[in-house]
Amino acid sequence: MARVRVEGFTLSLDGYGAGPGQDLAHPLGEGGTELHQWLLPTRTFQRALFGNEGGTTGVDDDFAARGFRNVGAWILGRNMFGPVRGPWPDESWKGWWGDSPPYHVPVFVLTHHARPDLAMAGGTTFHFVTGGIHEALARAREAAAGKDVRIGGGPATIRQYLREGLVDELHLAIAPVLLGRGEALFEGLDLRALGYACVASVASDKATHVVLRRQARPQGGD
Amino acid sequence: MARVRVEGFTLSLDGYGAGPGQDLAHPLGEGGTELHQWLLPTRTFQRALFGNEGGTTGVDDDFAARGFRNVGAWILGRNMFGPVRGPWPDESWKGWWGDSPPYHVPVFVLTHHARPDLAMAGGTTFHFVTGGIHEALARAREAAAGKDVRIGGGPATIRQYLREGLVDELHLAIAPVLLGRGEALFEGLDLRALGYACVASVASDKATHVVLRRQARPQGGD
Repeated sequence: MARVRVEGFTLSLDGYGAGPGQDLAHPLGEGGTELHQWLLPTRTFQRALFGNEGGTTGVDDDFAARGFRNVGAWILGRNMFGPVRGPWPDESWKGWWGDSPPYHVPVFVLTHHARPDLAMAGGTTFHFVTGGIHEALARAREAAAGKDVRIGGGPATIRQYLREGLVDELHLAIAPVLLGRGEALFEGLDLRALGYACVASVASDKATHVVLRRQARPQGGD
Repeated sequence: MARVRVEGFTLSLDGYGAGPGQDLAHPLGEGGTELHQWLLPTRTFQRALFGNEGGTTGVDDDFAARGFRNVGAWILGRNMFGPVRGPWPDESWKGWWGDSPPYHVPVFVLTHHARPDLAMAGGTTFHFVTGGIHEALARAREAAAGKDVRIGGGPATIRQYLREGLVDELHLAIAPVLLGRGEALFEGLDLRALGYACVASVASDKATHVVLRRQARPQGGD
């Protein structure tokens, strides 16, 4: 059955998924670039984002690559799509990624403010969903046509889906960086009680990669 | 100069330093044994706690061993010393560790309730400090006579010393385990603003070991 996945979500040692102070110059927030040192030089990222040949291979690239495999649709929180807040002033903002975004499938953007679908080059269409996370997931599942749905972030979006037990698997990369503040992924969220367990842990010199999977039934204590 | 160190402090993936439900049968709280799988089989731990020969060597043991080097005194929160809460009913509780605790130096226990010094076999003396963290540190520094002071925990004690900028270096072991709830080490504590940075990161198959060090002056953003 098609799964709902979080992939390549990077956390600081102190548990923050994005730095504070996100704006146009800092789409990942302050410190966000440090956080993603495992990802930025990989062959997968260089090819997907910039069309570059080359890039690093190995553990980090393996995890970057798996994040794109068998993905039929994405869900993004509004802040992942851009820095614009409140009602859309116009339709000029088309995402962080230029004319040909790296998705190449339908992307469902959670927002409180309706906006027409936005078809981009390369097969990416942004759909703006005002009906909440369940509606976005239903539409993404349908659009994915049997492939998986990837939830891109940010932390608030991932937390909403986790809280409802709607995420089947998460790949997290823990970077050897302190951010000090930002959006805490785990705060107030009891993943153990929600049925998640760590099923894999592999380290590179730039991050520790862990895979959390929702088990058939919640675990007890020890 | 003598330093103040936290060593071998183990965190779950979701940032908890000890499981909930600590009691006599679960000195580390529920799930706490899972958390310490990197430490329990090491040669250092087996020798220090049980007097056993043998045990594992390698990255995990290297970090376990460094935690005991050049330590002239320890500071423990009351819950690290035992499960007794409130005024001491009598002097029968002598710690989790039997007649010969693994410290072999003076140990300063933070408590609100005075109690006479307690000399144990093997060189460990427990001193009960009612004057707070600064008094405990001053007394530990003096007792350490030029060696370092190790702060053993728990999380609340470490957080108090971190918040005051009194810890020079922390070794954390991040275990591939979800606890779901417990005492969150980092919550509400901006280690970056307090001047800490990650200076080393080394993984074994059971934990990712990181060393955080307080820099001469706080870092800015990126």
